[in-house]
Amino acid sequence: MSPYVSIFPSGRRLTADFGDLLSDILAKEDIPLNLYCGRRGVCGKCFVEILSGDLPPSDERDQALARAKNLDPSRHRLACRLPVRGDLSIRIPEQALIPKARILSRGTGKEIFLDPTVRKIAVRPSRPDLHSPHALLEGLKTGLGLPGLRLAPETLFSAAAVLSEAPEKDPMVTAVLGVGDELRGVERGDTTSRLFGLAIDLGTTTLAADLVDLGTGTVIGNAAGLNGQSSFGADVVSRISAAFKDPAQAVALRNAVLASINGLISDLRRTTGVEPGEIYETVVAGNTAMNHFFLGLPVDGLAVAPFVGVFSVAPPLPADRTGLRVNPLGRIYLSPNLQSFVGGDITAGVVATDLPSRLGNVLFLDLGTNGELVLKTDRGMTSTSTAAGPAFEGMSVSCGLSAQTGAVDKAVLLEDGTIDVETIGGGPARGVCGSGLVDVIAAYLRRGDLSADGRILRPDKRLPVTPDVSLTSQDVREIQLASAAVKAGMRMLLESAHLGVEELDEVLVAGAFGAYLNVDNAAAIGLLPRLPGGRVKFVGNTSLEGARALLLSGRERLRAESFPRIIRHLPLAQDKAFQQIFVEELSFREWPAGGTPAAAKQEES
Amino acid sequence: MSPYVSIFPSGRRLTADFGDLLSDILAKEDIPLNLYCGRRGVCGKCFVEILSGDLPPSDERDQALARAKNLDPSRHRLACRLPVRGDLSIRIPEQALIPKARILSRGTGKEIFLDPTVRKIAVRPSRPDLHSPHALLEGLKTGLGLPGLRLAPETLFSAAAVLSEAPEKDPMVTAVLGVGDELRGVERGDTTSRLFGLAIDLGTTTLAADLVDLGTGTVIGNAAGLNGQSSFGADVVSRISAAFKDPAQAVALRNAVLASINGLISDLRRTTGVEPGEIYETVVAGNTAMNHFFLGLPVDGLAVAPFVGVFSVAPPLPADRTGLRVNPLGRIYLSPNLQSFVGGDITAGVVATDLPSRLGNVLFLDLGTNGELVLKTDRGMTSTSTAAGPAFEGMSVSCGLSAQTGAVDKAVLLEDGTIDVETIGGGPARGVCGSGLVDVIAAYLRRGDLSADGRILRPDKRLPVTPDVSLTSQDVREIQLASAAVKAGMRMLLESAHLGVEELDEVLVAGAFGAYLNVDNAAAIGLLPRLPGGRVKFVGNTSLEGARALLLSGRERLRAESFPRIIRHLPLAQDKAFQQIFVEELSFREWPAGGTPAAAKQEES
Repeated sequence: MSPYVSIFPSGRRLTADFGDLLSDILAKEDIPLNLYCGRRGVCGKCFVEILSGDLPPSDERDQALARAKNLDPSRHRLACRLPVRGDLSIRIPEQALIPKARILSRGTGKEIFLDPTVRKIAVRPSRPDLHSPHALLEGLKTGLGLPGLRLAPETLFSAAAVLSEAPEKDPMVTAVLGVGDELRGVERGDTTSRLFGLAIDLGTTTLAADLVDLGTGTVIGNAAGLNGQSSFGADVVSRISAAFKDPAQAVALRNAVLASINGLISDLRRTTGVEPGEIYETVVAGNTAMNHFFLGLPVDGLAVAPFVGVFSVAPPLPADRTGLRVNPLGRIYLSPNLQSFVGGDITAGVVATDLPSRLGNVLFLDLGTNGELVLKTDRGMTSTSTAAGPAFEGMSVSCGLSAQTGAVDKAVLLEDGTIDVETIGGGPARGVCGSGLVDVIAAYLRRGDLSADGRILRPDKRLPVTPDVSLTSQDVREIQLASAAVKAGMRMLLESAHLGVEELDEVLVAGAFGAYLNVDNAAAIGLLPRLPGGRVKFVGNTSLEGARALLLSGRERLRAESFPRIIRHLPLAQDKAFQQIFVEELSFREWPAGGTPAAAKQEES
Repeated sequence: MSPYVSIFPSGRRLTADFGDLLSDILAKEDIPLNLYCGRRGVCGKCFVEILSGDLPPSDERDQALARAKNLDPSRHRLACRLPVRGDLSIRIPEQALIPKARILSRGTGKEIFLDPTVRKIAVRPSRPDLHSPHALLEGLKTGLGLPGLRLAPETLFSAAAVLSEAPEKDPMVTAVLGVGDELRGVERGDTTSRLFGLAIDLGTTTLAADLVDLGTGTVIGNAAGLNGQSSFGADVVSRISAAFKDPAQAVALRNAVLASINGLISDLRRTTGVEPGEIYETVVAGNTAMNHFFLGLPVDGLAVAPFVGVFSVAPPLPADRTGLRVNPLGRIYLSPNLQSFVGGDITAGVVATDLPSRLGNVLFLDLGTNGELVLKTDRGMTSTSTAAGPAFEGMSVSCGLSAQTGAVDKAVLLEDGTIDVETIGGGPARGVCGSGLVDVIAAYLRRGDLSADGRILRPDKRLPVTPDVSLTSQDVREIQLASAAVKAGMRMLLESAHLGVEELDEVLVAGAFGAYLNVDNAAAIGLLPRLPGGRVKFVGNTSLEGARALLLSGRERLRAESFPRIIRHLPLAQDKAFQQIFVEELSFREWPAGGTPAAAKQEES
């Protein structure tokens, strides 16, 4: 009869085979035991408490390790070195489990297992002598207790220098290990306390980076800046066209974005003292065009129908092949692209919000030049993108500004009929950013100076924001187009899932625009549905948060890599129904409960 | 009851499970079925003849493929698409098996399975459209029928250009696939008929290269040249010292050997018309110092005791990281080093001679500056190396020459007591090469002008070879030292295996020196034992032949990579017994049957 392993306090009972290692039995059941040193019995992280059971005697080394951790060697045993001889009852202390990191600073908090794809182990290589003149790397394998250690090709070149000098100076070295016990680097001395990763949100307009301690999962610094490509055109499409027509421009675009990211890395070095050489893992989340530009891949396919990129899932790239100034032996991982216009930033958003695991029907929405949407129902996930145009990013509107100092980001219709505005930074208004535009339109709709179909009913045909700043009819038109694109995309997605808007349990709005958006006003102009009880949630920069999750957890990567296959895509471009709905949705009209704004309008007429 | 698959004409019977694919059943039994297209049912190479059994109906595509190959679709089925429903009797035609290539042009012929680590498949990528705007690489995966296709990192960058233009021009592309369905490259059009590999013998003095058609296993060109490092010192030790003392010299040494190999590649391009870009796989077999120099790895460890290199087994390296001018996406594989002074050239020799599979007790011997020896017995293999010094390479002897035009390579004592010599090229003698030295010493021993202990008994204290060329006492001393080192190494190896010399079933002598050596004279001076019936065999350039085997067969690589672990090493440096034996063996004396030369001498005295 097979022995049982019972886990207390839960009482969960696992079947084992005689001789199985306890760590293997727990691993089979997905219990996230911390096997940091790779089952070598040296890190002491997997000590479990034995409540009852027949145990083989432990050896001197294990006992010393237990005492060093203030554990009773007679009751605490290393799971990775304990074969099961019969029924066992155990308790797994919290510290024997892989720690969890809380990755979201804003939005909906999510915990993930701290399970990065790179780790460091300090080791004394086994020293060669005349009777066993083994190669230096063989000595490292022996020291690590990893005979199956594989070498990353580039490591061969760099590890040699450190190992060659090690025997004479400090014999301790630190091995940097990737997934599957791949040797990624060798450093002098014990550097295990310093291993860092970089999460990058590679936006069309702005960049943001988190520097993360991969030992603890803590963010120790962040930096933000503008994407240097902006001088080539504010929106992605103009940059794609530029690169498509002129290979020199393509190179210049790549160099611009590289310089911007490398600038952030310099900033982080200054603010945190972390050297670029200590960064072994980097995750970049950006839209499809941005990650193509970043790698210097041709964007020709993105310039013309049917609009395709080169890759969905890219292998982790050696840093020195990308031009990023981190450790040249580090790896650069790209958040996978779902489709040409639903890129790695959206995949990161799906990761950050843990969309697949959320209950009910959930719409994830990222508003920018493209509106990207992912609808999760019990029958799976579907993504789509709509060309919203850059109105909400403050482009294409005469008084538009991005969310910067001097931009009106808030406007309220007071009881006396005047409109009160606030600017970012509190100073004089220089223009209006996305959230401000929504507020202003909503205010004038309420005041009756703007008709639902977008006509300005004031004699001057302008909507004043401040004495110096006002919206023209053309500006209103741009906002109508942007809003209609988003609404039509949402309607198409809901219809494809046979869902009414009131059946949405959550609407998650990502991105900087979302952060300042007034839900009530967004509902008033019909940009977002009006849903009860806080179902509309602003989840912040999910591109950056998702990049951080992909940095901290190899499991999250595996999941993310499945998304391009399992998330269905709903193509809208050249879809006749979409064109029809788009035209219907040009009006500023609330989504009715149980239907869509245009459907309500049809009922009215 | 499990169904059986019976194979005729052998009658061999394999157990199967219902539903198993026939190809899987055969693979499990190590039957080398040619699954070239990776079980996709498109290459038509694995058609087997069905003699009897219950078969599911075949589809239209399989039938068309059978007819295209002049096979009867009712009797011939693709093993990779045939699930077993019940007992089957089959015949596997020769062409359904992986072809064998005969790799040795000289020495002992050996057949290996043609199973290179790279292959090409022509494919039309599945084309994206507006309803399925999948990424270009996803379309390639679909076209190849390989959803699990992995990308080599460097491939991402280069494949993009070809795939980006493919839809508009010729939609056919050729995928270059490595082991484990790793995409290594994408080429325009159908280039499947052109896939080449390069085998390189990287010698201290000379280089040799074979250009191989990886589709057929045929050598289509070869080239040879001098190692450009020679200007830094004739022997390895002086080059190691130079690099050890001065990093600039280390760089210069690397550049010199790279330039020499790249020169051979240019030569091969001229003589065969094969472009370097068509070479996707290169194997380099050289001694440990040479492969370290080639990669630019520090040789510091090789300069001082305990004399260790950086690596034994290196991962296949991206060509662009090595400086070799082959396809930058190609891989460079290094024949593994057994020990610091038993390098990849000897591993290649073990592969070329199939040493582990030979019957009885076999001694493999490569004579150069180092004498490297591997003894195979029924209890395994043991290697050792002895510092023979460069005498047999024509260095350190006043009239020494390498095996070049004008070198005396043969000398015979005629009945009238005169010594008749032959030179390479037939012209006037300019010096004496290794095989000539052995002949001259043997002739003078026979004539009585030289004592066994190396004293010249002629009044002029010289051994004339031609009127202008003669050996001095110092030259004789050098030859004694070289010969003693080899003999002592052999004795130590034999003693460690408790073998008498007469128990050797074969002595395989590799290298250029061996090719011209007169066995009888080598036995007369005691360099080689005198064994009956052609047991001493000259096996030629096994370094090059082995490199070719490692180029043609992934299985041979796996075997070779196990050698550093399974071949025991017998260290001789600073071994007291070795020093003792070395001194004993300084005499020119035949190995006695049943013992060793020194043992015989002791009996005499």
